[in-house]
Amino acid sequence: MRILLIGFGVVGQSFAKLILERRNELVKVHGLNPRIVGVVDKGGAAVANPELDLAEVLEVKKREGTVAASKHGKKDASALDLISNLDLDVVVETTPTNIKTAQPGLSHIEYALKLKRNVITTNKGPLALALPELIELSRYNNVALLFSGTVGGGTPILDFGKRCLASDKLVMVEGILNGTTNYILSSMEAEGKSFEEALKEAQRLGYAEADPTLDVEGWDTACKTVIIANWLMGRGVTLKDLSVEGITHVTKSDIEEAKKKGKSIKLVGRVAERIDVKPRLINRNDPICISGTLNAVRFVSQYAGDEIIIGKGAGGMETASAILRDLLEVKYRMAQRWYE
Amino acid sequence: MRILLIGFGVVGQSFAKLILERRNELVKVHGLNPRIVGVVDKGGAAVANPELDLAEVLEVKKREGTVAASKHGKKDASALDLISNLDLDVVVETTPTNIKTAQPGLSHIEYALKLKRNVITTNKGPLALALPELIELSRYNNVALLFSGTVGGGTPILDFGKRCLASDKLVMVEGILNGTTNYILSSMEAEGKSFEEALKEAQRLGYAEADPTLDVEGWDTACKTVIIANWLMGRGVTLKDLSVEGITHVTKSDIEEAKKKGKSIKLVGRVAERIDVKPRLINRNDPICISGTLNAVRFVSQYAGDEIIIGKGAGGMETASAILRDLLEVKYRMAQRWYE
Repeated sequence: MRILLIGFGVVGQSFAKLILERRNELVKVHGLNPRIVGVVDKGGAAVANPELDLAEVLEVKKREGTVAASKHGKKDASALDLISNLDLDVVVETTPTNIKTAQPGLSHIEYALKLKRNVITTNKGPLALALPELIELSRYNNVALLFSGTVGGGTPILDFGKRCLASDKLVMVEGILNGTTNYILSSMEAEGKSFEEALKEAQRLGYAEADPTLDVEGWDTACKTVIIANWLMGRGVTLKDLSVEGITHVTKSDIEEAKKKGKSIKLVGRVAERIDVKPRLINRNDPICISGTLNAVRFVSQYAGDEIIIGKGAGGMETASAILRDLLEVKYRMAQRWYE
Repeated sequence: MRILLIGFGVVGQSFAKLILERRNELVKVHGLNPRIVGVVDKGGAAVANPELDLAEVLEVKKREGTVAASKHGKKDASALDLISNLDLDVVVETTPTNIKTAQPGLSHIEYALKLKRNVITTNKGPLALALPELIELSRYNNVALLFSGTVGGGTPILDFGKRCLASDKLVMVEGILNGTTNYILSSMEAEGKSFEEALKEAQRLGYAEADPTLDVEGWDTACKTVIIANWLMGRGVTLKDLSVEGITHVTKSDIEEAKKKGKSIKLVGRVAERIDVKPRLINRNDPICISGTLNAVRFVSQYAGDEIIIGKGAGGMETASAILRDLLEVKYRMAQRWYE
């Protein structure tokens, strides 16, 4: 399986490490031999046939900051060039999420789909702003567009909803989809901290970014909610169709009040008749009322009732394992093999 | 899709009702038109081409106690006759679980697989006693053997482990897999009841059977644990390979002691190095520590970490919805279609 990897940050590098570590087993168990023929980062690209020396590329990236310094380096090659010029089975897009323009990920994904390359992405921006069109584009070109790492990190929330609940009818999906805000709210509740104190602690521990806007204003949750609404419930919406409210205004006393009623305040993305993101009161004995950086999602389906998934929602290696899950799906589709 | 339904108790009847209710939608959304051409119960069979009048068959079953009294009735037809003589795509086996001999389900399933019929079953007995051989038989004959209703009722625990975690490596699976014992333990804990009092209440509410042995002695959990060990972790074991301990000896004071340590006693089936079923102490803030009749399973995988599924573990309509899930899988395999 010939792969072009676009974006070589934490997730991209974890994916390369995962392949290095698991190749023998993947070949043996699944007949999957992932060969990365190109990697692109901001400084340029590295390209090799039949495949890159991943250990060298990782080492160079760490030392020089760009894969263009590799022995396989190509300083002037762009992602779009490589998408069209390399012989590829899959394009893996891991550039950072941009919720204003979705770029550069959106261009990469559109171009790859138009050239009939299967696409796997962990980039929420293009999906939040253009998922209905991208799904149509992938179907029209008869290639896969897979993105299981965009919701739940390594926890297969989308796959569960798509494959395991296909025969039922999803009535409602709601979940705690952002570990940063859940960590902040949990630590406000457990330790009586203010929002600002809890945010600072989360930043110190690496759970929140220096600019925490995407998380604390609810946009990360909103992107994931858009993906769930489209992929699992056929709702054809984008980010602009949602009402989004974050947690910056949640106070210590809001949380105290909730506690007295046996409830916790959680940032919840919900797809029901309305689609929204906002802080909600959740009963403390409700299984989705989890603390720390975990994610939890409730699927309400008509015949099998309520089902809940809980797992880690982020992490480089976890998200890389979601890319591998998608890669295996592409392989199985190409080989018309089943999961058994 | 031509179906022979063997066994017409709560699950079989719920499945017939589900088809009556959802046929139009299944055809429209999934291109699946389930046609039941035969139903077998203890009194005989009903057979019709191109399909049975399910409303009539359900009504006759209710009134006369057997489908043999239907206008399509065939008093002397046996399940084995019909498996070999009807033109079938799928045999759906829903006879009761028998953990001593696995009969009559085992004969039905073996015979159907040998004749290259796809098989869907909700009967745990044949799987608990002979799953390694049955999996081999289905592969040899290149037909599907699906049984997602045997673990978790409508909650797709097996499908989650099989399809969603295929690319990871399962290290350990443990779960609360039996609603009856969980109800009893929860009510001992919440209301200070003795085992006997809690059991009586569970029987009164219909959560426990008149003969509760299979549940309270741990055998139902053990059957499910065997299925998980085989299907998800390739362990090739049967019921006799497990150490099994039930909850009949759990006392009020055991539960009080646990409570003092912030723990609950739960009946847990676990597949790790050892495979066993026994009451275990679970931290009360562990997400699998659920109460009532719910099921909860923890999947520990090497790369994505811990993932937990919680849902209803039983119920006629829920288990029928699992049969439908398997039916859709058979359809997708036959059509080489993907879940998208």
